[in-house]
Amino acid sequence: MSRISYLNGKFLPHDDCLVPIDDRGLQFGDGVYEVILFKNNKLIDSNPHIERLFRSLNEVKISHNFDKEFFQNLAKELFQKNNLKKGSIYLQISRGVMNRIQNCPTGFEPTVVATVSPLKNFSQEEFEEGISVITSDDIRWHRVDIKSLNLLPAVLTNQKAKDLNFNDAIFVRDGFVTEGTFANVFIVDKNDTVITRNADNFILQGITRNRIIDLAKKRNLKVEERKFGVEELTNAKEVFLTSSTLILRSVTKVNDKIISNKAGEISKLLREDYLNFIG
Amino acid sequence: MSRISYLNGKFLPHDDCLVPIDDRGLQFGDGVYEVILFKNNKLIDSNPHIERLFRSLNEVKISHNFDKEFFQNLAKELFQKNNLKKGSIYLQISRGVMNRIQNCPTGFEPTVVATVSPLKNFSQEEFEEGISVITSDDIRWHRVDIKSLNLLPAVLTNQKAKDLNFNDAIFVRDGFVTEGTFANVFIVDKNDTVITRNADNFILQGITRNRIIDLAKKRNLKVEERKFGVEELTNAKEVFLTSSTLILRSVTKVNDKIISNKAGEISKLLREDYLNFIG
Repeated sequence: MSRISYLNGKFLPHDDCLVPIDDRGLQFGDGVYEVILFKNNKLIDSNPHIERLFRSLNEVKISHNFDKEFFQNLAKELFQKNNLKKGSIYLQISRGVMNRIQNCPTGFEPTVVATVSPLKNFSQEEFEEGISVITSDDIRWHRVDIKSLNLLPAVLTNQKAKDLNFNDAIFVRDGFVTEGTFANVFIVDKNDTVITRNADNFILQGITRNRIIDLAKKRNLKVEERKFGVEELTNAKEVFLTSSTLILRSVTKVNDKIISNKAGEISKLLREDYLNFIG
Repeated sequence: MSRISYLNGKFLPHDDCLVPIDDRGLQFGDGVYEVILFKNNKLIDSNPHIERLFRSLNEVKISHNFDKEFFQNLAKELFQKNNLKKGSIYLQISRGVMNRIQNCPTGFEPTVVATVSPLKNFSQEEFEEGISVITSDDIRWHRVDIKSLNLLPAVLTNQKAKDLNFNDAIFVRDGFVTEGTFANVFIVDKNDTVITRNADNFILQGITRNRIIDLAKKRNLKVEERKFGVEELTNAKEVFLTSSTLILRSVTKVNDKIISNKAGEISKLLREDYLNFIG
């Protein structure tokens, strides 16, 4: 069966999903997106994801008439058509198609794209082994709280890490950790306090991040949402990244510093809690 | 005659120029572009524009086999097919089409798009009247010396200015002027010194900017390429913006400060010099 995707009201063979070269998404990165897990016939944390999508659209002033049910139904139908029981959906909305002008015109129909993919699973062994990261200057724009298509800085930094034989990078701005290239960053200190940066305009307020905070609190772990620097990062007992598709990925090496030989206890517990949460 | 555009080796009716939704340009803004004037059967400052395009491609590590002649011939053919004697060409190269992954894969064919448009002329009266700008925090990424498709911050700031009934915005970073949303900024001080920011990673090194500097020097004007702040901007005798399509646009109002009642003398001279240069 060929892969089916969604474009502007139609379910089409993936390769037939084409957009005009004047789409604002292509010429300006003028659009926003979400990635949501799907399992057991439902979207995971669908409400906060779709609320964040609406917030992103609002912040970039893309007007629309969509409601939550529209995206929930679209997701279900798309997973069904692809005969996928679990996976992730990528939703993208750009401002629409128009002659290239440098401000934000109104009165155009946004372009809506959706694709689904199976989850790239990693094994328990891979999880335990963890990943390595470099720290890197956060060269991104100042509104990464908006989940926009302006992702080139994250892409280039992710590649820089891979070129150095690391798995990923953690951004640092003004001496403080912001986030990974496509994930939030958590540390666990020697007192088992779970720490992650407070949600300001220099990080995306991750839905998985928020859920992990919630699960940590349910375990009666102390959680602090505050800034922390590189020294606190490299001296942490545990470091992990969270995102919808990574879920929770243990970081065992930061630059030349070994954090731990394998995934830490709290990282393991919180990952299990999350896997139980999604069912 | 219908508008003809160029996509990956083919000249096609503009509306038939479509790219797959997996194009990296669309999903990540993972691409670069140039805009070049065309007049009297030649591209204006074609060498430095195409050299800058190659530099941008190199900085984002998009590999390619294009040479200058390729783009020069493409431009000529596209203007001919559209029966346009003068106008501008928009060239865009994105990393290509592939499943969405967060680093920069290699071994894919880049997507090449080109469109031509007639010039939006403004009258001598409009030039003399000048435009108004706001100053606005430079929220863009740290590598705007790369002419990339990550343009959302510039687009949003340009729209913010229009919403406030100004024509454009001038970005300010760390107290110093960087550039306009899509143009370089020049000031002329009370001693008739022409000042524009030195080319670092926080501005695009404009081809028109460089040409205007050259023309100013030919007029034996003193030119300084250095940082300047908002106070120097608002106290300037003349302020103007340059870009390939604006050429030179006089700024007569910055925030609530009237710079001058009409375009200044040096602005006028340099614009005339540039118009003579392009012939």
